[in-house]
Amino acid sequence: MKARIHITLKSGVLDPQGKAVHHALDHLGFQGLKDVRQGKYIEIDLNETDRAKAMEQLDEMCKALLANLVIERYSIDLD
Amino acid sequence: MKARIHITLKSGVLDPQGKAVHHALDHLGFQGLKDVRQGKYIEIDLNETDRAKAMEQLDEMCKALLANLVIERYSIDLD
Repeated sequence: MKARIHITLKSGVLDPQGKAVHHALDHLGFQGLKDVRQGKYIEIDLNETDRAKAMEQLDEMCKALLANLVIERYSIDLD
Repeated sequence: MKARIHITLKSGVLDPQGKAVHHALDHLGFQGLKDVRQGKYIEIDLNETDRAKAMEQLDEMCKALLANLVIERYSIDLD
């Protein structure tokens, strides 16, 4: 089973990486950008074949390691 | 218009960050993981309202700055 996890900063949390990309794009002449935010995208291939068990495992992984729950939120898509 | 851009390493390219996450998850007791790969996820809010123009701009941004085309590929989703 293949999981696709998106980890993004909660709204209101300063995103220095996003700001840097936004500034660089401006500098390269890309006008009309209101906001740029950057997060992490993680693909995980699992042996687990039971969908519910896989989701439970992935949720635990996000809480235990992948996301900093103070400032980040996560979403899990499972193929 | 809101764009969601995924930037991932081309297959075959070594992913040290993904390996590190995989190793840490193993260490935390999450067995049965075949592979873990990590990429970037960028959200861009654009003033542009014309879909074709927006896609063209975003494609240029990816080629000019956001993706290293030697080792990375990118995909653009536009709401």
